[in-house]
Amino acid sequence: MTSVTALLDAISGIGREPRSGGYARPVFSTAERDLRAWFVAEAEARGLDVEVDRNGILWAWWGMPGPGAVVTGSHLDSVPGGGAFDGPLGIAAALAAVDVLRERGFTPAKPLAIAVFPEEEGSRFGVACLGSRLLTGALSPDAARRLTDREGDTFAEVFAAGGIDPARIGPDPETLGRIGVFVELHVEQGRGLIDLDRPFAVAESILGHGRFKVSVRGEGNHAGTTLMADRRDPLVAAAGMVGRIAELAGAVDDARATVGRFEPVPGGTNVIASSVDFWIDARHPDDAVTRRLVADIDRMCVELAAARGCEAVLVEESWSPTVGFDPSLARRLGSTLPDAPYLRTGAGHDAGILASAVPTGMLFVRNPSGISHSPEEHVVDTDADASAAALADVLQDLLA
Amino acid sequence: MTSVTALLDAISGIGREPRSGGYARPVFSTAERDLRAWFVAEAEARGLDVEVDRNGILWAWWGMPGPGAVVTGSHLDSVPGGGAFDGPLGIAAALAAVDVLRERGFTPAKPLAIAVFPEEEGSRFGVACLGSRLLTGALSPDAARRLTDREGDTFAEVFAAGGIDPARIGPDPETLGRIGVFVELHVEQGRGLIDLDRPFAVAESILGHGRFKVSVRGEGNHAGTTLMADRRDPLVAAAGMVGRIAELAGAVDDARATVGRFEPVPGGTNVIASSVDFWIDARHPDDAVTRRLVADIDRMCVELAAARGCEAVLVEESWSPTVGFDPSLARRLGSTLPDAPYLRTGAGHDAGILASAVPTGMLFVRNPSGISHSPEEHVVDTDADASAAALADVLQDLLA
Repeated sequence: MTSVTALLDAISGIGREPRSGGYARPVFSTAERDLRAWFVAEAEARGLDVEVDRNGILWAWWGMPGPGAVVTGSHLDSVPGGGAFDGPLGIAAALAAVDVLRERGFTPAKPLAIAVFPEEEGSRFGVACLGSRLLTGALSPDAARRLTDREGDTFAEVFAAGGIDPARIGPDPETLGRIGVFVELHVEQGRGLIDLDRPFAVAESILGHGRFKVSVRGEGNHAGTTLMADRRDPLVAAAGMVGRIAELAGAVDDARATVGRFEPVPGGTNVIASSVDFWIDARHPDDAVTRRLVADIDRMCVELAAARGCEAVLVEESWSPTVGFDPSLARRLGSTLPDAPYLRTGAGHDAGILASAVPTGMLFVRNPSGISHSPEEHVVDTDADASAAALADVLQDLLA
Repeated sequence: MTSVTALLDAISGIGREPRSGGYARPVFSTAERDLRAWFVAEAEARGLDVEVDRNGILWAWWGMPGPGAVVTGSHLDSVPGGGAFDGPLGIAAALAAVDVLRERGFTPAKPLAIAVFPEEEGSRFGVACLGSRLLTGALSPDAARRLTDREGDTFAEVFAAGGIDPARIGPDPETLGRIGVFVELHVEQGRGLIDLDRPFAVAESILGHGRFKVSVRGEGNHAGTTLMADRRDPLVAAAGMVGRIAELAGAVDDARATVGRFEPVPGGTNVIASSVDFWIDARHPDDAVTRRLVADIDRMCVELAAARGCEAVLVEESWSPTVGFDPSLARRLGSTLPDAPYLRTGAGHDAGILASAVPTGMLFVRNPSGISHSPEEHVVDTDADASAAALADVLQDLLA
C-alpha cells in the first residue's frame, strides 16, 4: 500500500496560502483543478476508469459501473485557510484502500467506485455540498445557476471553465441509482477521538446546520466630518450583532453560532461604511432548537439595527437538517471495526446529503489538534494508514 | 468659461463601481491614470505646460515655472465607493478658473500652476496625502518604499508602473521652493455651508487625525465542531472593540473615531477566524485629546482581547496634527470673497501637509447632502461655477 501520507505529500504544495499557512482550494480554482488532475492520474495508475458526471463529480471505477456499487470518497476543495486533511484524507485513504485490497488479492463481487464531490465546503458559492445536493435533487439546477462567487463570477462561468455544461446539471437518478452504499472517510473536526484515545470512529449522526446572511444598511459618510451623534453606522450596528449572536448561542446548551465572514462596503479606513454583510453558521443537534435560535438572532438584529438608525435583513442561504446515518450500516461498520467507538459530528459532509437517498455511513480519523478549517488541522501518519486499512476492511466486507 | 460640471461630466464614467454606485479610483489604477491623462489633455488644450515631478505630482504651468508661483490644485484619486467631487472638483475648478482669467484678459505677473497630488486619500497604501508628504519630507522615501497595497503590490511596483522611478522619490526642495502660495478648492465634507446657506467658504483649520491598525489574534477552528465555551474567536473580540470605540469617542465632545475597514482572516462562513485586522480613523480639534482617546482605545482593546483568550495590538499607521491655515492668507482670501464665511473641517487634505512648508489656504464648496466619501456626495452646477469664479478672483488677487 502507498502510505496515505506519501499520497498527500504529493499535493501539499497545491493552493497553499502564504498569509495564513493554510490552503485555499475553492472549487474549480487552478488549485482544485490541479488536485482533480492528480486524482485522475492516481486512479488511472491503479487501473481505475475515471468519468465525470453531469454535476462535476469524479467517479473512479474498479469493475463495470452499475447498480449495487460500493462507493467511497470525499472532496478536494477547501475553505479559505483550511487544513491539508479535510477532504483529501478521504480521497487518499480510498486510493490506499484500493492498494490494500489489491495486495490482499481480493476480487470484488460488486463494482467499487471512489467519488470526488465538488464544492463540499460551499466556500465559493455559499452552498455546502453543492455537488451532492445537485446529484440528489436537494438543490434545484436553477438555484445553482443563480449563484455567484465573491468576484462576481457566476456558477455557470466557473463550472463551464471546469468542463461542466451548466445546462445539463441537476438530479441524476441513473448515477445515483448505481450507489448501493456510500462510506465517506474524513478527518475528525473536534476532540472526540482525542478524549477517547482511539485512531478512528464510526459516525452516528451529523448536526443540522444553516447558513444565514445578514445585510445591514446604514449611511455612508466621511469619517472626519460626521459627528458621532449624526451617524447611522452599519459597522457599529453589525459589530453589536456579532457580540449578541455569541451570547445567544452560548446560552443554548450544545448550540453553535459563528460569524467568520464579515464584509463592510466600501471598506475604506476613512469612510463610514454604507452597508455591511455578514454570515452566520448556526448548528444544534435538534433542528427545532437551531430554528428558534436563528429566529431570536433575526429579531435581535432587526432591533439592534433600528436602535442605530440602520436596517437589517436576515436571509437563509442554506439549511441542512440533522442526519442520523443508516443504523444497520453503522452496526455493520461497527462489527467490522470492533474497536471503533461511535461518534456524532457538528460538521456537514456530502455523506449527510447522500444519506437521504442511499444507505450511507462515515468513518472519522483522529485529529490531534482538535482544530479544523485551519492550518493546525492534523493527522499522524500511523492513524492515516490505520484508517485506510480500516476502510479497506469495510469495503471488503461490503463488496463480498 | 467651460462649466465645471461639463468638465466633470467628461470623467463621470471613469472608475465607477456598479455595486456601490460610487467611484474606485486608487492611485495609479487604470481609472486614476485615465484621469491624469484627461487632466494633461485639458491643461495642454489651455496652453499650459505639464510636467511630472519625482514624486508623481503633476504640474500644469501658465508662465515659466519658478519661485513665487501661485499654485492651486487638488487630487484625482478616490476612496473606494467615493463621490465624484472629492478631489476632481478642485482640479476642474482650477481649469475653469484659468478660463475665467483668460476671458478677463488678465496677464499674470507671476507664474501660476495647477497641481495634481497622488494618493491623497491613502486608500491604496494607507498613508493619506502621500504625494505632498513625500514632497515636503513629512514621509521618508524609505518608509514609502516599504508600503504595500491590499493585493500585495509594493509602492515601488505601483509607482514604477505609473512612470515614477521609486529610487528618486523624496523631499524636493527645488519643486517646493517654487510655491509662493498654495490654495486648494475642495468640496465640503460636512454640513457647515448647508447650515450657513452659503455656496463656498474660506478654510480656517483642519482637525488632526490618525490612522491606527488593530490586529486581533485568536484561534481558527471549525464552526460546527467547536463548542462556544472552547472558542478564542477574534471576530467576536474585535466586534466588541468596535462597539466600545464608538462609545469612547461618543463620550468625548467633538471627537470622531471610525472603523470602516474590518478584515477577518481567513473570512469563510464556516470557519472561526484565526485573526482580524481593523483600522481606526480618530480625530479631534485638540491633538492631545485625540492621543488620549487612542490610548484609551488601545487599553480597552488589549483588555477585551484578553477576556476572550485573544491578543490585540494597536499600531499607528499615520498621524496628521491639527493644522491652522496661514492667518494672513486666510484674511486676504476673506477680503477677496467678503461673503464667504470661515469654516474649519474634519477632513485631511494635501493643503494641510503643504501648510507646514508654504503659506496655504483652502476654499470649501457646499455639498447639499452633507455626505462625503459616498456616492451621495454632491455639488450643484451653480455652486460649482460660482466657486470656480471665486477661485479665479483669489488667483487674480494673488497673481497681481
